[in-house]
Amino acid sequence: MPCNGLLVVLSAPSGTGKGTLVKLLREQDENIRLSVSATTREPRKGEIDGCDYFFKTVEEFERMIKNNELIEWVKYCDNYYGTPREFIDSSLCLGYDVLLEIDVEGAANIKKLFPESVLVFILPPSFDELKKRIVGRGTEKPEVIQMRLEQAKKELGYISIYDYVVVNDKIEDAVQKIRSIITAEKLKYNRNKDILAQIGMQTGGTF
Amino acid sequence: MPCNGLLVVLSAPSGTGKGTLVKLLREQDENIRLSVSATTREPRKGEIDGCDYFFKTVEEFERMIKNNELIEWVKYCDNYYGTPREFIDSSLCLGYDVLLEIDVEGAANIKKLFPESVLVFILPPSFDELKKRIVGRGTEKPEVIQMRLEQAKKELGYISIYDYVVVNDKIEDAVQKIRSIITAEKLKYNRNKDILAQIGMQTGGTF
Repeated sequence: MPCNGLLVVLSAPSGTGKGTLVKLLREQDENIRLSVSATTREPRKGEIDGCDYFFKTVEEFERMIKNNELIEWVKYCDNYYGTPREFIDSSLCLGYDVLLEIDVEGAANIKKLFPESVLVFILPPSFDELKKRIVGRGTEKPEVIQMRLEQAKKELGYISIYDYVVVNDKIEDAVQKIRSIITAEKLKYNRNKDILAQIGMQTGGTF
Repeated sequence: MPCNGLLVVLSAPSGTGKGTLVKLLREQDENIRLSVSATTREPRKGEIDGCDYFFKTVEEFERMIKNNELIEWVKYCDNYYGTPREFIDSSLCLGYDVLLEIDVEGAANIKKLFPESVLVFILPPSFDELKKRIVGRGTEKPEVIQMRLEQAKKELGYISIYDYVVVNDKIEDAVQKIRSIITAEKLKYNRNKDILAQIGMQTGGTF
């Protein structure tokens, strides 16, 4: 079934546990591929180039923009973030579902470019929990933490552009919910308009 | 969570295995209630009044119409079929999901009356399989079989009003697919517009 993969955009305020969610989704569903973003921000401890992000210099990133190698890109907290085009196009065409972990502005851009994409917003179980997770990570400077809190607040303002909201209370439940969303989306009539022909039934045919 | 149950309409050509599907769905999900239709058609062997249908005389049925006790009703194959109102209203308000097994015209009516209902069309794995199942049931007269085949053909013409299509190939897979649809629908942002308030996060609040 060519070119019928589902493009699933996951966005979440920083510290919502999105990373673990994505890891479990990939482990549990072989049909899911993760789109790796390009960025000019500094790698965090343990992050691997080509796996967590493609880490680029500003010059390299700006060259990618110029060469139209990115589906979309944004700049925030003084860093560029962008989505390489080729991997997504080819994966969807091979029938893979592609997960895209991006921020709200990126998600809005993707929805314009791929109206059939599915946007999922991940929420923490509570506001207090979110603050605790952002502060508690302990890998960032205070001004970075403040910037991430402000960013989280801004992102919540975009929630209404998303198709689905999933509260990440118990991680395994959240994984199952996202898997249900993927299953259900693929059963939508609008994505299966040729279903009658596929099973050898046509309304115009004879009984 | 009052009045937030999901109204799920299942339609399927005769002989698609809808009955078994519904049975398994109810067994696997305690939150699902089945709306029992009223009809004036003759009970089939083994069918129980109040369980499979409320079997009514024409006079009784017409009185229900007059008293506005039915959400919707249709007449086909010379029989009335209708959906009693009270059970659905009260179940949805208690947070139960309600399954409604009705034909395509009934489904179209329900979608108008309950725009938030979810319409699922069940398909047999193949057209040949459908014919085999309708003919093979062996409980109906030839003219009834012919009428059901014609009815099935007509119903396929309505498929585009449905939100989802599920091919009932392996029954357990079909059950899981419908359960995924129910899970996903309840995660839609449009059904959760107060989600930020619920978890104590407001975009207008202070960080």
